[in-house]
Amino acid sequence: MKEVKVIGIAGGSGSGKSTVVRKIGEVCKSFVSIAQDSYYKSASYVNNANITAFNFDHPDAFDNELLCEHIRMLKAGKPIDMPQYDFVHHCRREETIHIEPAPLVIIDGLMIFYEPEIRELLDLKIYVDTPHDIRFIRRLQRDILERGRTLESVVKQYMEVVRPGHFSFIEPTKEFADLIVPEGGHNEKAMKVLNSFVREISQDED
Amino acid sequence: MKEVKVIGIAGGSGSGKSTVVRKIGEVCKSFVSIAQDSYYKSASYVNNANITAFNFDHPDAFDNELLCEHIRMLKAGKPIDMPQYDFVHHCRREETIHIEPAPLVIIDGLMIFYEPEIRELLDLKIYVDTPHDIRFIRRLQRDILERGRTLESVVKQYMEVVRPGHFSFIEPTKEFADLIVPEGGHNEKAMKVLNSFVREISQDED
Repeated sequence: MKEVKVIGIAGGSGSGKSTVVRKIGEVCKSFVSIAQDSYYKSASYVNNANITAFNFDHPDAFDNELLCEHIRMLKAGKPIDMPQYDFVHHCRREETIHIEPAPLVIIDGLMIFYEPEIRELLDLKIYVDTPHDIRFIRRLQRDILERGRTLESVVKQYMEVVRPGHFSFIEPTKEFADLIVPEGGHNEKAMKVLNSFVREISQDED
Repeated sequence: MKEVKVIGIAGGSGSGKSTVVRKIGEVCKSFVSIAQDSYYKSASYVNNANITAFNFDHPDAFDNELLCEHIRMLKAGKPIDMPQYDFVHHCRREETIHIEPAPLVIIDGLMIFYEPEIRELLDLKIYVDTPHDIRFIRRLQRDILERGRTLESVVKQYMEVVRPGHFSFIEPTKEFADLIVPEGGHNEKAMKVLNSFVREISQDED
């Protein structure tokens, strides 16, 4: 088997990271994707009333050991059982998702450039850079529509942990990026460039 | 003839724009490149002693009308006679360079994202983002080694016009970029991505 390549996509909450992955999926099928979000540690004592009791915007919130192990397994051509996270009850689900190895692995996450151990596993580091107000608006819409949250709770969490966490642990990792994509997957021109590269390295026959 | 694509590469002095063009040239032959630098207006009254008498770091220093006309001609599949600039005597040379049309045109320059008329002609806008101190050091070396300048004159020009011009007319145009390449052509990983795209759109048979 040909060497497995790993592309990492980092950027703040609501920056458009997962849209990049989805758009790549529209033109290329020979890759698997994993999300750092799926590797959050369980914090089931958290509810919508005490949402800031667990800091989801700190590098320690993730089970980065398991994430590293999974990236290494995929690089070695071995399958993994990726955890799934329940964002309503703030805990890891019972069920996992079985992922078979592929020539290309794409991993997206807020803080995947933070830990040197993860950075070293990435063959290409892309940072998605989107204006902070636009990111907040996207997050607000997602949290209210998909996660049953109130406006007050979203704003409180944003001001107390999301925003400080962004400037402490995410924005500074832009420094490590090989390529910066303004607006993420919503940037059609950048997606054309990325898609050329993805097709080339995954040897897709689309 | 297939539609001609135009890639614009902007960024500050010493950012690595022309290195991007050179590196693309190492893997692809089916493109022509033009530099906004070649379109400086003549200012032959300037010498190394009064170097700041003409502001080379202002959008008005360029003959952008001729540049636009040339981009349009290349897009229409017509050849151009590109001017050449003498950076020692600060004037346009007698001789021009004849450039035949090609499927891909790459144009690099400090301020090619500044004029809306030029921006509209660009199919992909890449901004090369390099730390300011690194850019100054590269400029210093080039101006002393290739342009017969003194340290004092380089620093004076940098402080009086290059640096203010950068923050007034170059850095703000990062906003228009489709893709940001830290370190320019010195960034090998980004060059791999760009080269995939360039090969694809120029249909190179390398």
